[in-house]
Amino acid sequence: MTKLLKDFQPNEQLDIPVLIKSADIRDAKDGSKYIALVFTDTSGEITAKLWHAGERALQDFTTGTVVQLSGKREVYQDRPQIRINHMRVLPESEQKPADYTPKAPESIADLQAFVKQTISEIQQPVWRGIVQYIFGAHWHDFFTFPAAKTNHHAYEGGLAFHTVSMVRLAQRIAPLYEAVNEDLLLSGTLLHDMGKTRELTGPVATQYRPEGNLIGHVVMIDEEIVQACDQLKLDSHSEAVTLLRHMVLSHHGELEYGAPVRPQIIEAELLHQIDQMDASLTMITMALADTRPGEYSERVFGLDNRRFYHHKPIA
Amino acid sequence: MTKLLKDFQPNEQLDIPVLIKSADIRDAKDGSKYIALVFTDTSGEITAKLWHAGERALQDFTTGTVVQLSGKREVYQDRPQIRINHMRVLPESEQKPADYTPKAPESIADLQAFVKQTISEIQQPVWRGIVQYIFGAHWHDFFTFPAAKTNHHAYEGGLAFHTVSMVRLAQRIAPLYEAVNEDLLLSGTLLHDMGKTRELTGPVATQYRPEGNLIGHVVMIDEEIVQACDQLKLDSHSEAVTLLRHMVLSHHGELEYGAPVRPQIIEAELLHQIDQMDASLTMITMALADTRPGEYSERVFGLDNRRFYHHKPIA
Amino acid sequence: MTKLLKDFQPNEQLDIPVLIKSADIRDAKDGSKYIALVFTDTSGEITAKLWHAGERALQDFTTGTVVQLSGKREVYQDRPQIRINHMRVLPESEQKPADYTPKAPESIADLQAFVKQTISEIQQPVWRGIVQYIFGAHWHDFFTFPAAKTNHHAYEGGLAFHTVSMVRLAQRIAPLYEAVNEDLLLSGTLLHDMGKTRELTGPVATQYRPEGNLIGHVVMIDEEIVQACDQLKLDSHSEAVTLLRHMVLSHHGELEYGAPVRPQIIEAELLHQIDQMDASLTMITMALADTRPGEYSERVFGLDNRRFYHHKPIA
Amino acid sequence: MTKLLKDFQPNEQLDIPVLIKSADIRDAKDGSKYIALVFTDTSGEITAKLWHAGERALQDFTTGTVVQLSGKREVYQDRPQIRINHMRVLPESEQKPADYTPKAPESIADLQAFVKQTISEIQQPVWRGIVQYIFGAHWHDFFTFPAAKTNHHAYEGGLAFHTVSMVRLAQRIAPLYEAVNEDLLLSGTLLHDMGKTRELTGPVATQYRPEGNLIGHVVMIDEEIVQACDQLKLDSHSEAVTLLRHMVLSHHGELEYGAPVRPQIIEAELLHQIDQMDASLTMITMALADTRPGEYSERVFGLDNRRFYHHKPIA
Amino acid sequence: MTKLLKDFQPNEQLDIPVLIKSADIRDAKDGSKYIALVFTDTSGEITAKLWHAGERALQDFTTGTVVQLSGKREVYQDRPQIRINHMRVLPESEQKPADYTPKAPESIADLQAFVKQTISEIQQPVWRGIVQYIFGAHWHDFFTFPAAKTNHHAYEGGLAFHTVSMVRLAQRIAPLYEAVNEDLLLSGTLLHDMGKTRELTGPVATQYRPEGNLIGHVVMIDEEIVQACDQLKLDSHSEAVTLLRHMVLSHHGELEYGAPVRPQIIEAELLHQIDQMDASLTMITMALADTRPGEYSERVFGLDNRRFYHHKPIA
Amino acid sequence: MTKLLKDFQPNEQLDIPVLIKSADIRDAKDGSKYIALVFTDTSGEITAKLWHAGERALQDFTTGTVVQLSGKREVYQDRPQIRINHMRVLPESEQKPADYTPKAPESIADLQAFVKQTISEIQQPVWRGIVQYIFGAHWHDFFTFPAAKTNHHAYEGGLAFHTVSMVRLAQRIAPLYEAVNEDLLLSGTLLHDMGKTRELTGPVATQYRPEGNLIGHVVMIDEEIVQACDQLKLDSHSEAVTLLRHMVLSHHGELEYGAPVRPQIIEAELLHQIDQMDASLTMITMALADTRPGEYSERVFGLDNRRFYHHKPIA
Repeated sequence: MTKLLKDFQPNEQLDIPVLIKSADIRDAKDGSKYIALVFTDTSGEITAKLWHAGERALQDFTTGTVVQLSGKREVYQDRPQIRINHMRVLPESEQKPADYTPKAPESIADLQAFVKQTISEIQQPVWRGIVQYIFGAHWHDFFTFPAAKTNHHAYEGGLAFHTVSMVRLAQRIAPLYEAVNEDLLLSGTLLHDMGKTRELTGPVATQYRPEGNLIGHVVMIDEEIVQACDQLKLDSHSEAVTLLRHMVLSHHGELEYGAPVRPQIIEAELLHQIDQMDASLTMITMALADTRPGEYSERVFGLDNRRFYHHKPIA
Repeated sequence: MTKLLKDFQPNEQLDIPVLIKSADIRDAKDGSKYIALVFTDTSGEITAKLWHAGERALQDFTTGTVVQLSGKREVYQDRPQIRINHMRVLPESEQKPADYTPKAPESIADLQAFVKQTISEIQQPVWRGIVQYIFGAHWHDFFTFPAAKTNHHAYEGGLAFHTVSMVRLAQRIAPLYEAVNEDLLLSGTLLHDMGKTRELTGPVATQYRPEGNLIGHVVMIDEEIVQACDQLKLDSHSEAVTLLRHMVLSHHGELEYGAPVRPQIIEAELLHQIDQMDASLTMITMALADTRPGEYSERVFGLDNRRFYHHKPIA
Repeated sequence: MTKLLKDFQPNEQLDIPVLIKSADIRDAKDGSKYIALVFTDTSGEITAKLWHAGERALQDFTTGTVVQLSGKREVYQDRPQIRINHMRVLPESEQKPADYTPKAPESIADLQAFVKQTISEIQQPVWRGIVQYIFGAHWHDFFTFPAAKTNHHAYEGGLAFHTVSMVRLAQRIAPLYEAVNEDLLLSGTLLHDMGKTRELTGPVATQYRPEGNLIGHVVMIDEEIVQACDQLKLDSHSEAVTLLRHMVLSHHGELEYGAPVRPQIIEAELLHQIDQMDASLTMITMALADTRPGEYSERVFGLDNRRFYHHKPIA
Repeated sequence: MTKLLKDFQPNEQLDIPVLIKSADIRDAKDGSKYIALVFTDTSGEITAKLWHAGERALQDFTTGTVVQLSGKREVYQDRPQIRINHMRVLPESEQKPADYTPKAPESIADLQAFVKQTISEIQQPVWRGIVQYIFGAHWHDFFTFPAAKTNHHAYEGGLAFHTVSMVRLAQRIAPLYEAVNEDLLLSGTLLHDMGKTRELTGPVATQYRPEGNLIGHVVMIDEEIVQACDQLKLDSHSEAVTLLRHMVLSHHGELEYGAPVRPQIIEAELLHQIDQMDASLTMITMALADTRPGEYSERVFGLDNRRFYHHKPIA
Repeated sequence: MTKLLKDFQPNEQLDIPVLIKSADIRDAKDGSKYIALVFTDTSGEITAKLWHAGERALQDFTTGTVVQLSGKREVYQDRPQIRINHMRVLPESEQKPADYTPKAPESIADLQAFVKQTISEIQQPVWRGIVQYIFGAHWHDFFTFPAAKTNHHAYEGGLAFHTVSMVRLAQRIAPLYEAVNEDLLLSGTLLHDMGKTRELTGPVATQYRPEGNLIGHVVMIDEEIVQACDQLKLDSHSEAVTLLRHMVLSHHGELEYGAPVRPQIIEAELLHQIDQMDASLTMITMALADTRPGEYSERVFGLDNRRFYHHKPIA
Repeated sequence: MTKLLKDFQPNEQLDIPVLIKSADIRDAKDGSKYIALVFTDTSGEITAKLWHAGERALQDFTTGTVVQLSGKREVYQDRPQIRINHMRVLPESEQKPADYTPKAPESIADLQAFVKQTISEIQQPVWRGIVQYIFGAHWHDFFTFPAAKTNHHAYEGGLAFHTVSMVRLAQRIAPLYEAVNEDLLLSGTLLHDMGKTRELTGPVATQYRPEGNLIGHVVMIDEEIVQACDQLKLDSHSEAVTLLRHMVLSHHGELEYGAPVRPQIIEAELLHQIDQMDASLTMITMALADTRPGEYSERVFGLDNRRFYHHKPIA
């Protein structure tokens, strides 16, 4: 099997196809141009610089292009980079950027089956109806969008994988606490981040859309629930609908994180904690994956810039 | 003209009709019951205690009852109170609680005319249409609800008067700053607190409704804009509608005050500042009205518990 | 079966044995004495006042005494209280205070069996050895102490029940995240609050001991791990011991909550989150148990003074 | 009319006279020197780099020199810059730096007339006397100093323009609130930032003077009021003077922004809010002027690093 | 020697002259009046209640009256109080309130001699001149005013004693740090709180004067330095005067504590720390004086509500 | 005597032996390598860059090497740097890095004598015994370790010098406050930072050890006290030992600075303040040493990024 970007050791030569994830043209201090590149394949990302870039290079090596990269993996200021020997654009037939981006650790088909099954197990008809309706409207986007622009689950399918991971936590935790209505918890968990399919631009070169900034994904999914009620002839002011709206509106937990209201029911508090739990464990796992045992990771922005220790194997 | 509650001097006898705004039954330390009362008329509120309340008194003197009150105005721990001599329930024909509550300093008719005129002057058709539609749906409530449960404009018609005061500020400030779109500013100002007609229970004995707590008036008015678009066949994702939604969603200014998004357009920032300006000047005015020149007011909860100095007349 | 304190409806007469949990002698404003009482049985607590308490009453009705209470359950300022008719001290043979305090919802025997089983399943010998040693030293206290003076699990056996609840969460969550070492997580979870057996005075009339305030339970359990190593001839500076010490030292999560270090390994972060999850779900459950459907609970001090909504049954 | 710096499109050639606002000599990474330049004319500022700067260039192209600049406007990392073709120092007769800096949007003469008129309309003689005295002492500086080193109104005349803008707000808002003494509000507004004429070094290459840092402009203007009283034989402890001093001492609003006391009279609270309103609307207007419709501005440091959306024209 | 208030044990009878420090008339819940009293003598304060106060008692037992008090010292809710048997106003000839208030632990004469000596040792003539001038103007007030209304040194002479204690710290610490100018440190220390003689009303029944609130003692002493310069024909903008002004302006250390500028010279930082050190050690000493060994004190408001442990004697 | 690094003026030639404190290999933007160097001798540090570094240079000029440096001192962006002419590694016999690092201003012998004397003067036997034991165990490290990795006392012997400076403050302050137990204060002061000998790696190229991060020096010294008790057969739960442990556990003062408990005895509060006093005066002194009179220092990270004014000599 072909070796991937992260499989090479420091100072090892490589000659593999990769995707240019971003290509930033900059002025060198001698007046020439260079390109600051980020390469990616399914194993992860690595940076490089193409010095003295001529007019041709500036046109060819652009974001989204698949290239054959020959060079050497080096370590620079404790971080890996590629020293480029040669780079050429692959023919049109091999321009399949989607083959070179990280993916969720489960197949989309599996995630879809799991979600379908979970929805079908919601007993309460109003919640199940709304969840089905909204998933119907966003089915494709839900399984391709990232969960965020950066930080965690920032890859194609990340939204679905983050949601599914949270559903699994919810299914295991809810039975331990009698006061928790599992139907409500699962319905809220499934929907809580769906507004991101409208807040963000999509799985590639993800940006916030202006409407995303101005309204925010929290309010966007609330709006969709209200509109689903209109379509399904449900009373949007009923207790059941109000509770579900409260779940999504309060899932950021604290006002200062953009929740217009704080959690006021036990299921909403739990949803918020499950969200934090999956996010933080995922960020730490990612940080440790790039850290050798016995050493500390880079600072993790999403966790108050803490560094985490990759402990040595314990016999 | 009849003297009102606040017209009496310390130690002056009074014998006037008043409304019982609240009546709280408590245990005296000798085992008897007493009633902690708040009386109100259009001049304001004052507290009293009815000691050794018998079964009859407990039944008669309840919240919302109009009584003939005879007693003496006293000062107790720097705050006015009434020492009750006698109190009797007025006959059914004189039970008009609405005649005994503070009112906006302008008539409802004048406020209505002003609002109607202001709406008609909005040039931009999408905004004018939405504002008209929503005012149509809530016309009566808008002019009777308070703007809040406590703090400021907490009286019948307070919502309309606070909104109108803000519109007047907006009309005077907007022309000084070329970048401000006055139509957008006025539309947002008119709508920003309309969700309170659903968040609160009404003008008397105002409480938050559970749905009010769980969703919040900020999201409630946003929801109404979206539903107005559906009714008016307007594209709720157009730039014009998105901007108007942003106005109401961000008007609390800071995330920690319950805005799901912070102001990101100049009109939204100005709306937030106008809201704060009218609220704080009104709270200080109220506090100074109860304070003699040369002295400090009670602490004002809504202004970081500051006390304000009622300065002496300056020649 | 005998009805318990919380089984009586408002205005219902009761005549049952209860424990005086606290008895505070105070001056009535007429110069007499009264006793502010808190009664408890296994169903919970309720307050009362004994007016005009004579010398005899002051001597008889003291904290820790079991009395036969006859009176009426009332509601006063939205909170339940007892209006006392008569009260007499039960004979010595019926003075069994331990029968009148809330208990963990599982028997001590079951909790002990569960803990024993969990410890035996820890594979890593250093951690298992230390956990066994410390549990050996505190076996009895661990199963009788409360987890706190107030807030949550503040009853006999509360420390064990809180710990066991957290172990169950840990066992269900750990398998979902490959990077988590379950042995380390379980060892840290079992030990994390053990210092409370020295910080607090015991299950009844719980107070902080001066040494508890001056050192704190976080450092106290760390100290016990170091001393266990000395006894077991283990190197207290080994990676395994350092990691376990880090688990308990960081379990408060944030420096401002008294953790001398923040979590720096994935298991420590997860331990902190599991602790918060069980604590907050337990506090909400307690608050909702005293709240009718459709209403809001009292403010919950340990959750930023939030009130929680007891939602109505959803068909 | 000559095109100005901001009139050129990306990639358009230019050949115009500009002022060197700053010239910073740096080491290139090949060991040579380069000059990091900021050019300015009345339309605004733009940066450039002069590579491989020889001894002659280092001597010629210094801060404060007017040069003829030939080059091309480019966009680099989303920000405009000039690629320099050629640059020469203009002859002595054309060295008029003052012609190349941004100016207030009104002439100094107009601002002076407005201020003179406003002062003459203050009815209260003590306040008018003090304001006249202090303006007499700082007349020239007041109309040439900037309002700040950076952020907003950071240009020659900025102090006067900011003050005049605030006076206009004050004149429009005060009549809406009966409790506000307009004379006091206007007097405080006119004086509030006058201490900046001593805190800062002047309109060009503005710095804080050491005395400015050690005492601060808030205390400096207070000191001037006290000294004016001495000169005018006014009692500096009278109610009128104390109130005016309080206006300037509290105008930063919050202790953490350097106000030694918080606003305690209604006029002081309003002055603070008017100051914030003009400052923030001015900063947003500046940010939007550099932003295309449909896009977000750079982050605005003085407004919590928020970015603002330049909305598209609404039909 | 006569026993004083704090010398009596719980349940011990007393019959001594004391000063009524405050007398607050309140409504008992049976409709009668009672007086909440604070008695004081030089040993400290203790509270009491006079129940069923008749018209005569209300007139006689007022703030500032010296009475012969007969009663019993009790403990109520962990705090000492007096149960009054009898109380009578002492004859005019024995009405010497000043004999019954706490005093500084050193005589005024000693404090005055120390201050005089300290001033004379300042070498730098500008600072010595200003200090002499201001002390000359406030000599009597400086040695009679308290340092604060509550918290610490809140007694007659407290301002002088706090200042002298700080001077002693300054004299011992300055020689250890070569960079510190001791003359500047001592001058700033002597003057830093002098503004309190104008901010507060005086040693008895101390209140903030309105001017004190509106200007604040920090700015008041700065103003006095400027006026002293005018009188002494010193340049108030010289380096020496600016530094001394900076000392007093910054001595609260943090903007949020009301310093208009933060310390920017080493002497100012040290002055702030010495102020905190004497204040906090004095507050803890006071709290421990009311606490038995082996127990915790009441919460100390001025130290973040911490409680302090009075440790047992260590052999 | 040989001139040292800090003795040279801007643009003066130098040719002196120095130690390479750090050598960081980086990519120049023309593709070559350069070395970012920090040179040090006992007078302080200064940076430089070696451009176009060949393979030989990369091998020779590494951290910890003593070189003969010939070049010129320059000023670059307001900070000094060296322009390198030539650099060569000194022969093995002259490789004495310890001769080129800053030292405490007192000799180690003097510091040792002072510490020995101080310990011997502690009267209380338990505290003296523990202090003696722990100093015995860490004698050498205590006098060679730095007090920190950066900020202040970050040099060989810094830990001892910081501790000794604090002891001197303690000895001068304690006699002024009767409630302070000087033995306890001195014992706590001597021990408080001893855990740094295990938290840090040592005097050269100081780093935090993983165990140092995971446990922290505050808990490490507490652990040593407990272990000392075991060795000395002292009861680690006695009042005396508990107080000493509390001293070291609380010396960071605030929970958010990593103290597991806040100071609860007067000696602990004073220890915390003495620590802050010596640290801040030392940091300001260092900053002023690099600043000319009449100018402001660089920002001091450890003091909230404040800049300090080096005031001019006052006649």
